[in-house]
Formats: sequence, structure tokens, C-alpha cells
Amino acid sequence: MSNPNEPIEIKIAYIGGGSRYWAQMVMTDLALTPSLTGEIALYDIDHRAALNNVERAQEIYGHPDARTTFAVNAYLTPEEVLEGADFVILSILPGPMQMFANDLDIPKKYGVLQTVGDTTGPGGISRALRSIPIYLAYAHQIMALCPDAWVINYTNPMTLCTAALYAAEPEIKAFGCCHEVFGTQQMLAGLVKMYLKVPRPARQEIKTDVAGVNHFTFASRASWQGHNLYPILHEHMNQDEFWQDRTAWSEQAKATGQWFSSQKLIAFDYLRNFDVLGAAGDRHLAEFVPWYLTSEANLHRWGVILTPSSYRLGTWQPPQNAPAAAEAAEASTGQKKGLRFSGEEGIPQMLALLGVEPLDTNVNLPNWGQMPDLPLGAIVETNAQFRQDSLTPVIPTPLPQGALNLVRHIVDVQELTLEAAVLKDRDMAFQAMLLDPLCGIPTDRARAMFDELLKANQALLPEWDI
Amino acid sequence: MSNPNEPIEIKIAYIGGGSRYWAQMVMTDLALTPSLTGEIALYDIDHRAALNNVERAQEIYGHPDARTTFAVNAYLTPEEVLEGADFVILSILPGPMQMFANDLDIPKKYGVLQTVGDTTGPGGISRALRSIPIYLAYAHQIMALCPDAWVINYTNPMTLCTAALYAAEPEIKAFGCCHEVFGTQQMLAGLVKMYLKVPRPARQEIKTDVAGVNHFTFASRASWQGHNLYPILHEHMNQDEFWQDRTAWSEQAKATGQWFSSQKLIAFDYLRNFDVLGAAGDRHLAEFVPWYLTSEANLHRWGVILTPSSYRLGTWQPPQNAPAAAEAAEASTGQKKGLRFSGEEGIPQMLALLGVEPLDTNVNLPNWGQMPDLPLGAIVETNAQFRQDSLTPVIPTPLPQGALNLVRHIVDVQELTLEAAVLKDRDMAFQAMLLDPLCGIPTDRARAMFDELLKANQALLPEWDI
Amino acid sequence: MSNPNEPIEIKIAYIGGGSRYWAQMVMTDLALTPSLTGEIALYDIDHRAALNNVERAQEIYGHPDARTTFAVNAYLTPEEVLEGADFVILSILPGPMQMFANDLDIPKKYGVLQTVGDTTGPGGISRALRSIPIYLAYAHQIMALCPDAWVINYTNPMTLCTAALYAAEPEIKAFGCCHEVFGTQQMLAGLVKMYLKVPRPARQEIKTDVAGVNHFTFASRASWQGHNLYPILHEHMNQDEFWQDRTAWSEQAKATGQWFSSQKLIAFDYLRNFDVLGAAGDRHLAEFVPWYLTSEANLHRWGVILTPSSYRLGTWQPPQNAPAAAEAAEASTGQKKGLRFSGEEGIPQMLALLGVEPLDTNVNLPNWGQMPDLPLGAIVETNAQFRQDSLTPVIPTPLPQGALNLVRHIVDVQELTLEAAVLKDRDMAFQAMLLDPLCGIPTDRARAMFDELLKANQALLPEWDI
Amino acid sequence: MSNPNEPIEIKIAYIGGGSRYWAQMVMTDLALTPSLTGEIALYDIDHRAALNNVERAQEIYGHPDARTTFAVNAYLTPEEVLEGADFVILSILPGPMQMFANDLDIPKKYGVLQTVGDTTGPGGISRALRSIPIYLAYAHQIMALCPDAWVINYTNPMTLCTAALYAAEPEIKAFGCCHEVFGTQQMLAGLVKMYLKVPRPARQEIKTDVAGVNHFTFASRASWQGHNLYPILHEHMNQDEFWQDRTAWSEQAKATGQWFSSQKLIAFDYLRNFDVLGAAGDRHLAEFVPWYLTSEANLHRWGVILTPSSYRLGTWQPPQNAPAAAEAAEASTGQKKGLRFSGEEGIPQMLALLGVEPLDTNVNLPNWGQMPDLPLGAIVETNAQFRQDSLTPVIPTPLPQGALNLVRHIVDVQELTLEAAVLKDRDMAFQAMLLDPLCGIPTDRARAMFDELLKANQALLPEWDI
Repeated sequence: MSNPNEPIEIKIAYIGGGSRYWAQMVMTDLALTPSLTGEIALYDIDHRAALNNVERAQEIYGHPDARTTFAVNAYLTPEEVLEGADFVILSILPGPMQMFANDLDIPKKYGVLQTVGDTTGPGGISRALRSIPIYLAYAHQIMALCPDAWVINYTNPMTLCTAALYAAEPEIKAFGCCHEVFGTQQMLAGLVKMYLKVPRPARQEIKTDVAGVNHFTFASRASWQGHNLYPILHEHMNQDEFWQDRTAWSEQAKATGQWFSSQKLIAFDYLRNFDVLGAAGDRHLAEFVPWYLTSEANLHRWGVILTPSSYRLGTWQPPQNAPAAAEAAEASTGQKKGLRFSGEEGIPQMLALLGVEPLDTNVNLPNWGQMPDLPLGAIVETNAQFRQDSLTPVIPTPLPQGALNLVRHIVDVQELTLEAAVLKDRDMAFQAMLLDPLCGIPTDRARAMFDELLKANQALLPEWDI
Repeated sequence: MSNPNEPIEIKIAYIGGGSRYWAQMVMTDLALTPSLTGEIALYDIDHRAALNNVERAQEIYGHPDARTTFAVNAYLTPEEVLEGADFVILSILPGPMQMFANDLDIPKKYGVLQTVGDTTGPGGISRALRSIPIYLAYAHQIMALCPDAWVINYTNPMTLCTAALYAAEPEIKAFGCCHEVFGTQQMLAGLVKMYLKVPRPARQEIKTDVAGVNHFTFASRASWQGHNLYPILHEHMNQDEFWQDRTAWSEQAKATGQWFSSQKLIAFDYLRNFDVLGAAGDRHLAEFVPWYLTSEANLHRWGVILTPSSYRLGTWQPPQNAPAAAEAAEASTGQKKGLRFSGEEGIPQMLALLGVEPLDTNVNLPNWGQMPDLPLGAIVETNAQFRQDSLTPVIPTPLPQGALNLVRHIVDVQELTLEAAVLKDRDMAFQAMLLDPLCGIPTDRARAMFDELLKANQALLPEWDI
Repeated sequence: MSNPNEPIEIKIAYIGGGSRYWAQMVMTDLALTPSLTGEIALYDIDHRAALNNVERAQEIYGHPDARTTFAVNAYLTPEEVLEGADFVILSILPGPMQMFANDLDIPKKYGVLQTVGDTTGPGGISRALRSIPIYLAYAHQIMALCPDAWVINYTNPMTLCTAALYAAEPEIKAFGCCHEVFGTQQMLAGLVKMYLKVPRPARQEIKTDVAGVNHFTFASRASWQGHNLYPILHEHMNQDEFWQDRTAWSEQAKATGQWFSSQKLIAFDYLRNFDVLGAAGDRHLAEFVPWYLTSEANLHRWGVILTPSSYRLGTWQPPQNAPAAAEAAEASTGQKKGLRFSGEEGIPQMLALLGVEPLDTNVNLPNWGQMPDLPLGAIVETNAQFRQDSLTPVIPTPLPQGALNLVRHIVDVQELTLEAAVLKDRDMAFQAMLLDPLCGIPTDRARAMFDELLKANQALLPEWDI
Repeated sequence: MSNPNEPIEIKIAYIGGGSRYWAQMVMTDLALTPSLTGEIALYDIDHRAALNNVERAQEIYGHPDARTTFAVNAYLTPEEVLEGADFVILSILPGPMQMFANDLDIPKKYGVLQTVGDTTGPGGISRALRSIPIYLAYAHQIMALCPDAWVINYTNPMTLCTAALYAAEPEIKAFGCCHEVFGTQQMLAGLVKMYLKVPRPARQEIKTDVAGVNHFTFASRASWQGHNLYPILHEHMNQDEFWQDRTAWSEQAKATGQWFSSQKLIAFDYLRNFDVLGAAGDRHLAEFVPWYLTSEANLHRWGVILTPSSYRLGTWQPPQNAPAAAEAAEASTGQKKGLRFSGEEGIPQMLALLGVEPLDTNVNLPNWGQMPDLPLGAIVETNAQFRQDSLTPVIPTPLPQGALNLVRHIVDVQELTLEAAVLKDRDMAFQAMLLDPLCGIPTDRARAMFDELLKANQALLPEWDI
């Protein structure tokens, strides 16, 4: 029974976020949310990064566009930030960038290519093995210090980080957020404009049932104002030249470092083959099956390029003949002039959970029945209702059997990976890697790759037998 | 892309409803809904009843309060009303009132008491056996004549009528509506006022997770503006005299024919024993377990009375000393002066499905995962999202194990009953009756009761071996 | 690669058995088994009872019929008997006989009749609550002292004692044995003789699929030399007078104290109603459903009588006019003249597990898939293969749906009871009792009965909040 | 109650078998089984092949070693052979050998290698698509003409042919037989001799739990006389040089046409990686995962070679320098001098089902619970009890999670293939192929391969849209 005219006072514990743009985005979005105020308590293992965010906070909350204010403090321990928090945001980098680079480079030596390498495939499993122990520990701290807090995870591998929270503390109120589906909704908004001859609708007007696991999601239903968009999708992909080879485009993108661009062709290839549209970016959708990453040339055919580890390490240099594009990319991330909403849904989710404004959106949660053909308890991504102190999944239109099988296979790999990380079981971790669809190499080669990856993670796996 | 300023034109097929107040209520609610217009096509096996509703429609749509109009026509065949319908409303009486009376009187001879007898227990099973064939037939007609229509069932037994539609036509877009949960929300609104010292909120402000099967539902979560209401419920039932014997009240209610009143004590007895509040009326909640209907005296102790079959037959006469109450009851159903919204959700559901205004409410649907511990496909009652051409269940807070077991047992009985009705299998129907929790009598007595009930339904079970 | 000509040396730990005939029977059967020798280590909380069995052992192994010998020693601690054991036999009385009497007498005061009261119903639940802690503790001791031993449980409630072993120690090699099915096989052997006009076959020649939970089992298939016996069963029960009232017989049995006799009518009543023959004694089969124990008169109609608590307490006196029958009963348990095999299967099971002679028989084991429609892990009774160091369930012909539902409901009650006992959770224990099919009484009466039962067990439930 | 001294008279319907050695083997085994007599009724779509078997029968039953006789007749229709049969043996070639060759050669063009190509992979799916309609039709004929007959399938793809029988006729009494596990038992017998220093035991003495699907089975437990053989397996594979490269051996085998030899290295590679021994031949075990058939060179490293399609077509010629080996292979199939038992279990299975002698062995049956983590109803291979007119699965020691996941994935592919074949659904069939672990090629290449395979089967898929 708070006074609706006064802002609600909350404490947000922000773990990590130092070196990424997420923390600053969250602070900016909060600055534009007059119904909230309170404290943002920052913790980062790199304390300077947290201090840097404090400085940035002064700019944001001192900006004339700001409509509320938050005390932003950096602390030296996670305990201080968690104590009494209403929300916990987890947005960490599991290990230094060099480890991320290893996750790409070591499999590549063995012929296993990955577009992203932070979610699935040998690289994703490697990253999961070092992330899970960190998340198990945070889960216990959260339940000790702020058991009623809502816990929002932004870290990849999204599924397994969120799964680790629930494995450690089944009563935790955690969920994982990812904006990949928004891109699909944007694409669909464009098709609505093109085929229905109306002004381009906002992506929030595109209603999609979401079904799958994070980064391997499908829009098992898509509509705008009651119009089923599937006939449009079929019309679109049946156009002349829709399926034409995108190698030239890809080579240009590679030359200019447009790592995150794609042509949405793979999302449509799932539609063509499995009768359901992929609902994540092609760079992710390519990694969960063996068919696209058979070679760089084949990948380029689909309009997707490999992100080089040098980019992750910050050492990538665009070729001399492509400065404009790179500069433009750089510029696009700056927000010099005014405070603007990010379009991310973290703050709307908080507002909904606080009872200010209900929200329906996609989210990663344990399978409490929303995907009845997948194991109960596995972390899945579907829509959910965010309501006052309540978050409940909404059951999507079921996936067609073939697509369900693809997802089920990934869930199998993820469950083995989680158990291996919890038990620190080498053999089980290797089995997870063998089962991964990208691991189509001889078993002795796979074992060498696995050993090398484990070795590269050794500093973060102290109790393992490596 | 309809013009939002013009009413949407729809055809509503209304099957049955002749002798009940539902049809008139629906027509009144529609009259108060300016965004809709079109035709209401009436069919009733008693054609005069349909014609009577046409007359009533003239009053309603000619009333100065009416904000829109509908053409209301009575037809001689269901085919005519179903052809091209956008919505189908099923609200029938499965067999003459004498059969309803039999459903109460025959079991009573064998010592099996029922408060309502239209849902569960030997009477409910008897009613189901004669309703299911009717629903199987309608399902086929609907899929032949208006396969895209939304089908709204109001007939009891709600679960098994809705189940029959899906058993006959798995692709049908049907759901079952019941207002029992509203009463629980009303009661909770009263407690909010009493314990939180605020003006009584509207029942729609009370948020309840709903879990179970129709008339045997539980509010596995209840809140108002983010306040968990469970502590209030516990405080309430721990008051002095809360559990006191209600025999005197019950005897008075019986004398004056207040058949539908109750004290909500049984709903709280589930809370006390199974840690979850019953979310239907006590008259229904009493029928799914063997503990309340052991005798009329025991039932009265809980503030519930048996509805006599004479009331169902219209032959019940209030005693001389209670004319005022009966008259008042009579009067309360008249709506002489102005058109008023009924508070029922049929029209809001239609509006949501047409894209006018989204709605979240409880509804009976096949278990697509919303109750993962019950058999998939069984008809269950939970909340759902009504959206433009979309209806998707929302997963409730799970029931405690004991309450889940109670519901599971009822689902078992219902599944056997459905299969028996589909297969016209006497033995299986008898097994369903033996398994029913109200059937705690010797097996040979139960067989005699079953035979007698079947005989009483013979006219509506032409293909059975009776 | 033991020498097949020399007896195998084993250590058998025998826990309990002091006051029952089981220990002596086991010792006798072993004496007649030349392929085994070694030690029988006895422990009983009543040490005198164990010493008494040592004395009895001297008679048995000194008897001229004995074909092998065992060292039989009584120890003061269970640790001594378990250390290094190859087999552990658990055959205890959970609490003094007065508690068994309470399990019958307290429910009776509230109108709940039970024929046996050691398995199910309020009495069975009461007994389970005090047995489970004892079994949890033994399980831990066994896994500490003889983790490779096969553990044979003879104690009732069979299902929940065995379940407690697995709940405490999932890797334990335990199973539960019960001879109830043998009685059904004997009855079937008699029918083979009668209807097929052949000499009465040995009961081992009667092949029955067994499906259910202990004492509530069904013969979902029955054959002799490939003859399906179901047509005979149907012919038999369709005879004139088969279903006639057995009140006179029952009253005579009651007068003469023939507590364990019955007419097998209830086993056939399941066949008539649920299309599958009950495969335990009628005294047990009557207790799992509400239909037979509605009154003593109704029970007598079926040819079953209530065992009085006075018999359990040893204070029952037969009336003067029935000495012969009682004496005969007494005499039938004596084995004065020679050592004879008991017909029980404990020793054949050991021989099979030692590799001497394979055995297929019914046994209680966790559901590893043998009853796929019941929860995995619940203790169920089916046939199994006893082989050298291996015990694997055999999948029976499935139960018809109605019978499956009956069993499923009992499994629900048992799972709640187990969890209540493990968690020492009063509320959950009461829910189990309410859910029990025999508990068709008002909830406040049920609560009083439950409280009284719990009070009566208080000495054995030290950590409960009573 | 047949006279045990007289042979049992049976009618065996033998469908197919014309061009294979199975029919002659069965006739020979029967000739050596004095307890049986009767008729073998032959039907083959190549009637000359059936007539040829009749001739061969005269030799067999006229041979002095024969201990019984059978009338062997060739018929022109399957109806004649099925009418009144007690056993039906299905042993057909689904399509001409050229189609089998296509199943190998078309995928090879697209870079998909297969060792056998009759079970799984694109070739196996292709073969399944043309086999399933044949099996659906036979199932209906069998249930019309000999519904009580036991149906023994020998045709590959074993799983899907058997599945088709149950899909068409759920009440059919069918099972699939395969001798692959025998080879594993033989190998284990050799290890028993080597490591336990005893005479080599008969393979029947080796007890293996069998778990999986046909040709992708695992020995989740292995023992001899109670000795767990797993420690020996580990010791064996940890020997020096056990894992050494077998390329030289493979090249020699290829040169001399020893297509069916292998080194059992892959069976052990599963043990090394997944902690459970593969229980089929390496040529089969290699085909269910993507790791061995990445190239011919990699396959050779494991001591397995590709069977060339020319061998299937009978056009393969051994090189000049290897005549002896080829001749020896040829000679080994002749049985010139005496009638000898084949070692196959078809006749022992019949004898067990007739009540002569019980048998426990591995067999392909619907999953009735024996593999509780796989979908119920899927055809799986485990041990089972063959008893008089009864066949019941025995539950194996469960597979480790990783191996279970591998099998589960194959079951997914098989279920899609079956449904595609039943529905004649091209898209679903293509999805099955994409999901197959051997199909790690780009999706557009896979589609071209699929189209080409379908085209090659067109003559046997008349109702498909090709």
C-alpha cells in the first residue's frame, strides 16, 4: 500500500558489469524511471571497474534528462552488496578474455568452428565449466543475505548459469534475460510493414510464442494484431533469390569486422526444414546443430561470419580499406547527447515485479511445465507473466516434433554439463562435449581437444583433477 | 486491421440456454459492449425456449441502455447456427430435470448424499454419461461447420463436457468457463478490507493462482497489490469461534431454501488440513472427498445444506414462515430497471480473443503442461492468457502434495468416466463410480445403485447395453 | 569358482525374529540346504528372545534330518551381527504388541474398522510411522558394515519398511518378501485340479504375473502349463451360489478364532469389478478400499472377520464350545517329528543370489520400470529374476486402468507417509491418513483419531512434536 | 496337456527368406529338434526362391542326422502361409539389392560414409521408408489370419520393422531377433579364459544385461558365474598397445574382402568414453554416432572397413593375391557334411513359447517399462523371459546418462522415421535424416541427398509425393 505518487525505494545489488555496457545501460534506464529510487550497490572482482561505474553514475544521475536518482556505491565484497537487496543483477565475465579466446581457438585447432562460443559447442561447455562454480557460490550467498530478492542473470551461458543458481538453491527467485528474441520481433515488424502495407509497428506489438532454450529458441507462433504471420513468412522465403548464396556479403562483413551482422537466413532455414522460425540470431542458431559450421565457406554461404578471437581480445584491426564501417560501428554504441532508454527489459521487469506495471515477455526459467516434453526443472526460455512479486511461465504453442528433438538433445548436453560441473567429474564433462552436435570429430581427437580446454581453464577449476 | 472506431461484426452460435438465465445474461452483456455487433444465432432442442429468448432480445436491444445491437434469430437445426460462427456457446441441460433429480435421489437411496450432484459423485458420473455423447456430436459438427470458432462451454459437468469436445476433435478451440473462483476472490476481497483496513477492493484486484479441476480448484497463491494473503487467511481461521458448529445456521438455511449459501468453512478446512485454500464453493468442495457428506448432520456442521431434488424439479415449496426470503431470492434474479453487466467473463473473453482488450482469468483447458503432475491432456482449471486469437495457460504455483493427490484421484475417475462414455463400456463406467470418493458403500450395493442410475438414463444412452 | 561339491560359507545377520516363528523357520530351512554353511548371527532388542533362538538352533542342527550345520550366535549389538554379513534378514516387531493393539483399537473407536491393521489404513500408517525411523537407521548401519550384503525384509508394513531402506541408502541391495501370493497360487492349483481334471499341481507350477504393492497385488496373468486360467476363474465365479452371503461361516470363524481364514471372495470381487484377480489374502485386500469394512456385518458377508486386538495381545480366549478348532490351530504350527521345508522362499532366494540355482518369484523392489504407470522408485511387488548376485524385475502384464488407479492411490498415501516419517512432519502424516481410503470420517474426527494414535506411539517418536 | 513324448505339431509361416541363408538355417535347426513337427509354409515374392527352399528341405529332412520331419511347402500368396500359423517368421529383403547399393552409394556422394547402411544413417532411413509399408501390411494380414501367432522378425532395420508391426496392430505378438549380442558374449568368453585362467566357457554362460536399441546395444552388466567382468574389461583395455592404430589390419581386410571382421575396438571405445561396453559389432556401433565415419582413414584406424556396395550387388572381385581368404569365407557358409545347430535362438525361442524349455535371452520388444528413461512403446532391445505363451521383458541395469542420451537421440530419429513412413510425409522423413548423427553436412546438400534417395526408392513408395 505504498503511495503511488512517491517513488519506490529499492536496493539493487549489481555483481559484475564492470567492463561491459550492461551496468551503464541499467543505470541509464533507471534514471529514466521516476517510479524508482534507492541504491545501486556495485561489486566487481575488478574493483576499478566498479569505481568506474560509480563515476559514470554521477554523469547519468546528474544529467538533466534524469527523472530520478540512485545512490551508486562500489563495495569490496559481494556480501555488502547482497545484504538486504531487493534485486540482484548478475552480469559477470567468467574468466579473463584470454579464456574466451581459448574457447574459440582450441576447438578451431581440432576443426571445430564456432560463431560465438559462449553458449554451446566445446567453447560453450568450457565456459560453462568455469562459470557454474561461481554461480553455485553466488546462489548460496544470495539465499543467506537476501533470500527474497529477485535475481536477474545476464551472463552467458545463460541456461547453465541460471541452472546453477537453481541447482544450488532450489528456492531462489532467479531468471535469465536475453534480448535475442527482440531481433526476431524487429525482423517480423519489418515484414508486417512490407507485406501488410502498414507503418512499421513497434517490436512489442509483434506477439511471439517463444519455445526452446536460450539462443536456441523458436517462435512457435507469431502474430500482429491477430494476423498470423506464418503465411507471410512462407511467402517471404519463397521469393526469388531469397535463398541465394551470401558468400560475397559475408566476405565483405568479415573484411570490415561486422561481427554481429547476419542475414536471418538460418532462422528461415529452420522454418523451411522444421516448420518453425528460429527466434535467436543466426550466429547462435548456427551453433546448436552440425550443418552450418562444417567450414567457414559453408557458413559464409548463409550470411554469417566467425567472430575472431582477436576481436574478443581487443586486438583485431580492421583492414585499411574499411575504416568508415568500423568507425560507424564504434560510434553507434556511444550515447553522447541525451539519456535514452535502451530498449532492454530489465527495468520493465523490475517495475512489473514491484507491481507498477504488468509485463509479459520471454525469460529463462526452470521448466515447471511450460515445455512439457522437456525434462522438468531444466532451464527453458518461454514467455512469462511478470506480476507483483510473481513470475509465472506461459505455455507456448508446442514445437513441431523435429525441432523439439533438436532442443531436447541440447538439454541433454546441458544437463550433463551441469552435473559434471557440480560433481567436478572429468568423464562426464567429456561425455557432454562428445554429445555436443558440433563435436563431429574422432573420439581421440575430441579427447585431446577436451584435455587442452580443461588445461586452459585450470586456474578457475582448482578442485578438478586436471 | 479493422477500424478501431467501428464495432467488430461477429456471429455467435448459442446452443441451448433456453431455460436458463445464461442466454439472457449474455445478450445483456453484449448489449453493453459497443465494440461488438452482428448476429446471435440460437438453437435449443426446445425451440420455444429459443423463440422466447428472441423475444427477450427485443426488449434488451430495444432498451435505452443498449449501446449496440445484435440480430437475434432462433433456428431449427444446430447446423444453421454453427455455419460460419465466430464463437460457439454451449449451455445445455443434459436431459430433462427429472434426470437431474434422479442423479440426487437414486444415490441417496443407497446412502450416498450429494450437495449438487452435477459434477462428481455417482450423480455427476451419471450426468456425464449422458452429456458426453451430446458433446462428442457437437464437436464433430463444429469442426465441420466453423472449425476456427472459439467454443465456450458453460455446461456441467464442466470438465467432462469440455474433455468430450477434445476427445472427439483434438484441434477444437474450446474452453470451459466457471465463475466459482470469483466467489473466492470476493471472499478474499472482504478479508483484505477487514485485515488491511482499506476499502473493499474489486474482486478483479485479488490475484489468485488457480490449480485443480473445475469445482475442485485451489488458490495456490493469493495476493492483493503484492500482499500475500495467506498470512491473513491463517489469522482469520485461527480466530475464536471460527470453526464453531454451523448446524443452527444450516437448519435455518434449509428451512428457507437458501440452497446456494454457505459459510466457506470447507474451503478453509482444506487450508487447515492441506495447506491450500479451496477456490470453489463449499457445496462443490464437499463432494470430491468422503469426509463431509457422511451424513446430513455432519454436512450441516460445516454450514452447507443439501439441495433437494424437489428444488431442481421446481416443486419445492418454502414453508409458510419463510415467504420473504424466497421472494427475495426470486426478486434478485430479475433485472427490471436497467441493463447491468453480469460480472461474468464471457464477453470480456470474447473481446480479448478478438484483440480488443487482453484478459487474464481462470479457465478449463486441456493440460498442456500447466499442471505437470497431472496427466497431459486432462481438462484442468488454471489461469490463462486470453489474447488476440490466442489462449495459453499460465502455470500456477504447484499444489502441496496432499492436495495434488486429491485432485489426481478425481482426474483418474474422470478419465475412466470419459473413456467409458466414449466406448459405451458399462464395466468401466461402474469402475469409475466405485473409484469415486463418495462411493464408500459395499460393492454389491454400489452395483445396484449403478444399475438403477443407468436405467434412469436409458433414453439418452440408446447404444448402451442396459 | 568355488568348488561345487563343498557348501558355500556365508554369514547371515538376523535382526529381530525373536518372538516370531520366522527365525526358526529360516534355521530349519537352512538345515535342509546342504549347499550352505556358516554363521547365523542373531540380534534382537529382546536379547532373551535371541538366546532362545540359539537354543532352538541346537535342536535343529542336532536333529538327524539336518543336512548341514550353522554356527548360531546371539549378539548384544546390531553392529556385531552386520559386520561382514553376506545376507541380512530384517524381521522385527516395530514396537510392543500393545502398540499393535492400539493400531486396531483407536481407529475402531472412531468407526474405522481394520482386518489386519499392519499395512494400510490408520493402523498401518501408525505402524509405519514408528517403523520407518528404525529402518532408516538400519539402512545406514548396513551400508557402513556390510554394503555388499543382500538385505531381505520380512517386516510389515512391507512396502514402507523396504522404502525406508532405499530412502536412507539408495545403493542398498534390499528386497521385501511376502508369501501372500503363494496362497493365490494354491487356490489356482485347486481350480486347475477341479476344472482341468488333472492331479493338483504344485503351486510353483502356477505361473502368475504379479502387479501392485504388497498385500494389494493382482495376478494380471495366470496360467498353468500354458493354459490361461482366466476363463476358468470366470467360470468358477459364475457358478450358482458362488457369491452367496457368508455371514454364517464368518460368525462361526469368529467364534472359534479362525482369524486367518477366508473365503477368497474379495479376491474374486476384484475380478468381477476390475477384471483382475486379487493376489493377496482377502483380509489384506479388504483394507485398501472403502467398500468392505463399512461394518462388521458387511465384512462378514464376504467371509472375512476382524482379528481382535485381544488376539494380538495374547489375551483372547476361545469360547468353551470351540476348543477343538483352537487346539487344532495350535497344533498345526508345531513341527515335532521331523525337519520340514517351510515352503517359504527365503533360502531359495539366497541360493539363487549365490549362483546355485536360479529362481523367478515375486518380490518387493523399487519401481525401476516394472510398473511404468506408477512413480519410479516407489516400492512395488512384481516377479523378478533371482540370479547370481543379481536381482532384476520382470515386467508384468499391465493392470487394467481401474485397478491401476486403486494401486496408484495407495502409492500416493504411502509416499506421503514415508516423507512424513522422514521429515517428522505431523501435518503431512495427517494428510496421509485423510487420504487413506479407509478414512471416510469427518475431518475433525479424523484429526482426533490421528492425535490419539500419535500419542500412543510417542515413546517411539522421540523427535516428533506430539 | 500334450503328451510330452510326442512332438508338438506346429505350422510355421515363413515369409521371405528365399535368397538368404536364414530359411535353410531354420529348417536345419528344426530338423535337429525332435520335440517339434508340422509344416513350414513358405512365401517369397520370388516364388522360385521359395521353391528352391523346398528342394533344400528335402535334403535336410532326408538327411540321416534329421531327428524330426516337417512338411515344407511353397505357396503363391502370403494369405495361404499365414492362415492358422502358430509362428510367423519375417525375413525379407526390402527391395532389390540395387536399392541396398543405392543406400550406400548415394550418401557417399554427399560425403556420408556408412559401414552397413541397413539400420541407421541416411541409408538405414531410406531402407526403413521402403520396409515399413510392407510391414504395416503384413501386420494387418497376420491379425486377420493368425492373430494368436508369435511373430519373429529377422529383417533390418530390425527396430523399425518391428515398430511397424506394433504401429499397425498394437495387439500383435511380435518380437525381433538379432544375434549381434552373441558376438559380445563370445568375446567376453574369451576374456574369461584369458584373465580367469579357466577353460573358455560357452557364450550362454556369459550373463549380460542388454540395454539399448538393436545394433546400438550396450552390456550394462556382464558376469560369468557371478564374477563381475567389468574389472577385466578395464584391465584389458588398459594394456599396452590395446588402443593402437589398426590401419594396417584394416587395409589388409579390405584387400581380401573380410567385410564382416572387426577388432571390437569401438565397443571398447564406448566403454572408455561412456563407461559401458558396446554390445553389437563395431560395424554397427560405428554408425550411430558422428565420430568414427568422418573418413575412411579414421574408420580404418579403429579396425573397421566399409562394406562396398559392389559386395552387396555380388559384383565385387577379390584381388588376385587374396583368393585363399575369399574362398575360405565362401566355404565357411557351406554345411556339406552333417546337420549342425546354427547357434541362433529362433528354435529355442519357439520351444520356450511352446512350454518345452524356458529361455532367457535378448530380444526387441516395445518398451513396456524395461527402459524407463526412453519413450514407452519405442522398440528397444533388452533381455526377456520366454515362457509358455508368454514373453516378458527383464529390466536391465540402467545405462549411464551419457550413453542413455546417445540411445535416446537414435530413438528420436527412429520415431520420426516411423511416423514419416506411416503418414508418407516427405518433410518429416527429411527431418529424420537431418537429425541422424551421420548427417553432419550442410542442409541444402542434405536435401539433395534426401531427394536422390527418395527418387531411388520411388518404385516402392507409390503413394508418396516424389
